[in-house]
Amino acid sequence: MTYCVGLFLKDGLVLMSDTRTNAGADNIAAYAKMHVVQAPDRVITIMTAGNLAITQSVIARAVEGAGVEPVDGKPVETLHNVKSMFDAARLLGDAIRAVYDRDAESLAQQSYAFEASLILSGQIAGRRLRMFYVYSAGNFIEAAPETPYFQIGETKYGKPILDRVAKHDTSLEDGVKLAMISMDSTLRSNFSVGLPADLLVYRRDSMEIAVRQRIGDDDPYFRTVREGWSAALRQAYRDLPRPPWL
Amino acid sequence: MTYCVGLFLKDGLVLMSDTRTNAGADNIAAYAKMHVVQAPDRVITIMTAGNLAITQSVIARAVEGAGVEPVDGKPVETLHNVKSMFDAARLLGDAIRAVYDRDAESLAQQSYAFEASLILSGQIAGRRLRMFYVYSAGNFIEAAPETPYFQIGETKYGKPILDRVAKHDTSLEDGVKLAMISMDSTLRSNFSVGLPADLLVYRRDSMEIAVRQRIGDDDPYFRTVREGWSAALRQAYRDLPRPPWL
Repeated sequence: MTYCVGLFLKDGLVLMSDTRTNAGADNIAAYAKMHVVQAPDRVITIMTAGNLAITQSVIARAVEGAGVEPVDGKPVETLHNVKSMFDAARLLGDAIRAVYDRDAESLAQQSYAFEASLILSGQIAGRRLRMFYVYSAGNFIEAAPETPYFQIGETKYGKPILDRVAKHDTSLEDGVKLAMISMDSTLRSNFSVGLPADLLVYRRDSMEIAVRQRIGDDDPYFRTVREGWSAALRQAYRDLPRPPWL
Repeated sequence: MTYCVGLFLKDGLVLMSDTRTNAGADNIAAYAKMHVVQAPDRVITIMTAGNLAITQSVIARAVEGAGVEPVDGKPVETLHNVKSMFDAARLLGDAIRAVYDRDAESLAQQSYAFEASLILSGQIAGRRLRMFYVYSAGNFIEAAPETPYFQIGETKYGKPILDRVAKHDTSLEDGVKLAMISMDSTLRSNFSVGLPADLLVYRRDSMEIAVRQRIGDDDPYFRTVREGWSAALRQAYRDLPRPPWL
């Protein structure tokens, strides 16, 4: 499984993804699920969940143009040259549909579902910062101030803390804390999600990545958050008044 | 959907269940999912999740002997006369299998899965307090000090807090807080789980119910827990140190 969370905040983006993939309980590996296309005029990020063979094909197609034939000698459209984030979402949706056309029937023959979901976010120079959730059917929705986060993969364990405190005007610093708490809650409750994790922070209109880190079990700040949060929760529940009728 | 949680603690039981049932988003009703069989020699509780037609049939059969023909003039075995909690778990498993035999094929014809899961707990005089998870196949597992809780229904949202702090030696008072926090986290993240909720507390070896309450949105103690917990979480995440690299 996978857990990825993307916060779409007033000041920018906070993204966090785990790296565990598993095919059965005895075939566990680590793969980055966060992909970044960076150039002076763009920062585009994609986080992926679902069947790894599908999502790797989708990324190869959308980032490198792998498997795409040029038409009339024009350069192949990729995330390196799309003109807008909306075009990037459309391109990813098309890539998912192309992989579906190639793979879905063979997968179905062996009773595998065609599973892929992506969180696309970023900014192209002179345009708005945007975040999209791209579904396995290739369609997509956009994050908005009222719904300032998307999750993919094993989403439920880490959702309550987001529902309680994530707001569009949450600061990037607090967004990092939230993403880490949400990831930690998932890690503790589901062994199919595992460290190391990838963290990325992007400041709106900066056109450069503010932070990109791989976070292992021994990462000092992640440990501070995990241990501080655990201690605070224990204390908070101890501090609640006793039921008066018991 | 449904959310039920049962804590199997050194000092007794804390059980909490919601009351929402829905068949589609526009057919929502309230049904108790907590059932109690009480007599001077026994306190037996069952919480149910799954298809309501199935679980009501299972309860009618196991509690009242509905649909069971006496054999050789002997009284029908029900939860009112079983000799042990293990026998109660077996009886519930048999009831699920009887309902399966009657209903599963007709349900499958209309593409409905046979879904039912139960948390059985309680004590019969002179015997141990026990808690069982009864599956839709009629088999069951027992809670143990190492795994002091069971959940059924929409379980993931309310699991992280249990994983962090629920221990077998958690007090009943703290167990009530935990069950309420776990329920509240689920209520906030999933509209298919809804108030009012039912709460039951049983002290080990007491042979009587210590607390049984129906808890609505205006319940003063539940409000204290919800609001206190929300405020504490917000404060806890504010109090975490800022990321030093941002």
